[in-house]
Amino acid sequence: MPVCSQKVTCLLSRSIVLNNPQKRNALSLAMLESLCRDLLHDAESNDLRVIVISAEGPVFSSGHNLKELTSAEGWDHHAEVFAVCTDVMNLIQDMPVPVIAKVNGLATAAGCQLVASCDIAVASEKSRFATPGVNVGLFCSTPAVAVGRSLPRKVALEMLFTGEPISAHDALLHGLVSRVVPEDKLDEVTMKIANKICEASRSVIALGKATFYKQMAHNRNEAYQIAAQVMVDNLALRDGQEGIRSFIQKRKPVWTHSTERAHE
Amino acid sequence: MPVCSQKVTCLLSRSIVLNNPQKRNALSLAMLESLCRDLLHDAESNDLRVIVISAEGPVFSSGHNLKELTSAEGWDHHAEVFAVCTDVMNLIQDMPVPVIAKVNGLATAAGCQLVASCDIAVASEKSRFATPGVNVGLFCSTPAVAVGRSLPRKVALEMLFTGEPISAHDALLHGLVSRVVPEDKLDEVTMKIANKICEASRSVIALGKATFYKQMAHNRNEAYQIAAQVMVDNLALRDGQEGIRSFIQKRKPVWTHSTERAHE
Amino acid sequence: MPVCSQKVTCLLSRSIVLNNPQKRNALSLAMLESLCRDLLHDAESNDLRVIVISAEGPVFSSGHNLKELTSAEGWDHHAEVFAVCTDVMNLIQDMPVPVIAKVNGLATAAGCQLVASCDIAVASEKSRFATPGVNVGLFCSTPAVAVGRSLPRKVALEMLFTGEPISAHDALLHGLVSRVVPEDKLDEVTMKIANKICEASRSVIALGKATFYKQMAHNRNEAYQIAAQVMVDNLALRDGQEGIRSFIQKRKPVWTHSTERAHE
Repeated sequence: MPVCSQKVTCLLSRSIVLNNPQKRNALSLAMLESLCRDLLHDAESNDLRVIVISAEGPVFSSGHNLKELTSAEGWDHHAEVFAVCTDVMNLIQDMPVPVIAKVNGLATAAGCQLVASCDIAVASEKSRFATPGVNVGLFCSTPAVAVGRSLPRKVALEMLFTGEPISAHDALLHGLVSRVVPEDKLDEVTMKIANKICEASRSVIALGKATFYKQMAHNRNEAYQIAAQVMVDNLALRDGQEGIRSFIQKRKPVWTHSTERAHE
Repeated sequence: MPVCSQKVTCLLSRSIVLNNPQKRNALSLAMLESLCRDLLHDAESNDLRVIVISAEGPVFSSGHNLKELTSAEGWDHHAEVFAVCTDVMNLIQDMPVPVIAKVNGLATAAGCQLVASCDIAVASEKSRFATPGVNVGLFCSTPAVAVGRSLPRKVALEMLFTGEPISAHDALLHGLVSRVVPEDKLDEVTMKIANKICEASRSVIALGKATFYKQMAHNRNEAYQIAAQVMVDNLALRDGQEGIRSFIQKRKPVWTHSTERAHE
Repeated sequence: MPVCSQKVTCLLSRSIVLNNPQKRNALSLAMLESLCRDLLHDAESNDLRVIVISAEGPVFSSGHNLKELTSAEGWDHHAEVFAVCTDVMNLIQDMPVPVIAKVNGLATAAGCQLVASCDIAVASEKSRFATPGVNVGLFCSTPAVAVGRSLPRKVALEMLFTGEPISAHDALLHGLVSRVVPEDKLDEVTMKIANKICEASRSVIALGKATFYKQMAHNRNEAYQIAAQVMVDNLALRDGQEGIRSFIQKRKPVWTHSTERAHE
């Protein structure tokens, strides 16, 4: 069952589509493992520059498949489901390329967590976001890790305690998504962001992304120590030197995307 | 002097009303101790599901009673006032049930801190929020702990340095409150949120709330380790199993609110 | 070359103006060192109460001077540039007086970092903010330290990955600035904030500012321990006692701005 398909929309942008709309794109163990494989496929290739995660149907994703969480399945199985889910969420942020969520519908529970875990999220105006686990006696505690780091605490807790959805507009207001657009502009705007990322040096983006998450986990002074050293390392990259040179020479840069240092 | 009254508005929702409007509901030591007692009263009862803190009069709370902070009172007394105040603010977040601030007026200094410390805050459009300690030579450093964790840093510092109030609209924009409504809708909207919380399992909410604050104090990886284990524990609760079962059986769940594990 | 000029607009408010508009107020090493000197000049004087950083010309600041970052300059020079830049950003937050960015134009890369590093930021409606280092192969990793602590993560990453500018309106929505005003009100609003700060006790503001940044780097419980002790210390200041006394006596306070304790 191809619960999750991968297609190449342009040469450098990979599109991962959650395509089990009959099951509301539930993040079953099979779906999570498929997502993980699709993310990792050729992740080190210079021809991969950005990943866009979207979904078929009116529900982006409804979160875990509750049938996998009954007592009949056993605690070990439950633990595995949450472990794999956490792996996927962390993998998104640990990938060397930016991962964009393109949301056109309802994202709930671990589906909302998936949006919150992406680096960038673009949503259509009709999209909505909820953490309704409380309604079925399973508080959205793992989604809360990502949601609590994206939204102000009071908004996050109101969502978690009531399970009620927030609108795309409120998601933008409070920082869960970075952009909200009319449904008929969703592809265009997302593609524009993805294409802009494809114009950059992959190695520079990879270094910058890894450093962003790393330094954000430290206090300000430690963060600056980490980041200042990275700036020097970035300049030493071939593409770092090419970028500065091309700017001074008023021409377009030609990237190698190499992670090697320029010869000095 | 009943500076703080407690009434039961529905069977499961407790209302705590700051009712010393002549003194602008100042958080005197007596008021803080009364608030503490009201919060803790029957806190472990299954019949308590949510607490709403509101106030009589046009001022939600003006913060500390400055007469308790003169040199005549002595440093030990000052230290006690701040210690009890901190205890109340922490208690709100450590309670097993959600605490909602229902604000209809001006909340300043420790009164603003009280709003910032609640899990959820609903404000009428006329409400305003300020940290004006700087005007009387007493910088709002303890309110800043809560305010600085609710609002973006620059907005928080402008409030702290100037003492000027922000509007309810700006409080929502910047995350100090989770919802702003017309004054004549304040009761209705707050009640609707409280009632929704009352429909959930108390033990599931308690586990979720405690976990939220715990994991938010850790980095992402540690937070996920904590939360993933809690998801397994949550599923093992009687109400965790009942919730999943009722969902699969397409019926309403019947909660026990018990903190015991389902027999396996 | 006076790349950065200092003038006194009122007796207590210092204005620092980036005035190299031909070079888009690039933060060259000379500019950074000048900025550092201007910040520190008479920093301990009671006659300094607030600093406003603004700029000549349509660009607030374009960030580093890329000519200082070519391979010809050598890695040691690069490291020095980033070290001095970090020193300036940290110095702003470590100063005993509030530092306000008054922005009327485009702030990019380290120029955007400068805005993000100020305590308060007031921007005209036409201002825009970007971290476009990725376009020249130099990811804005040091700006990201300040930008990532000011804006929601997804908005920050979209800026960092695409290099595209955000509007003043979005900067306010997401917390990068604390206020946006029409261009013809920019001076007036900034001055009003600065004047309000000048009315307060310098020693109280200094204690409050230092405590704010200190406690924000700790978890909630530790933060309250720090802040509660500071409240007691603040009350023991001459201006702490004068403030409370004047409030009770219903008169205007007369500050000494002294950092000494009141005699007990």
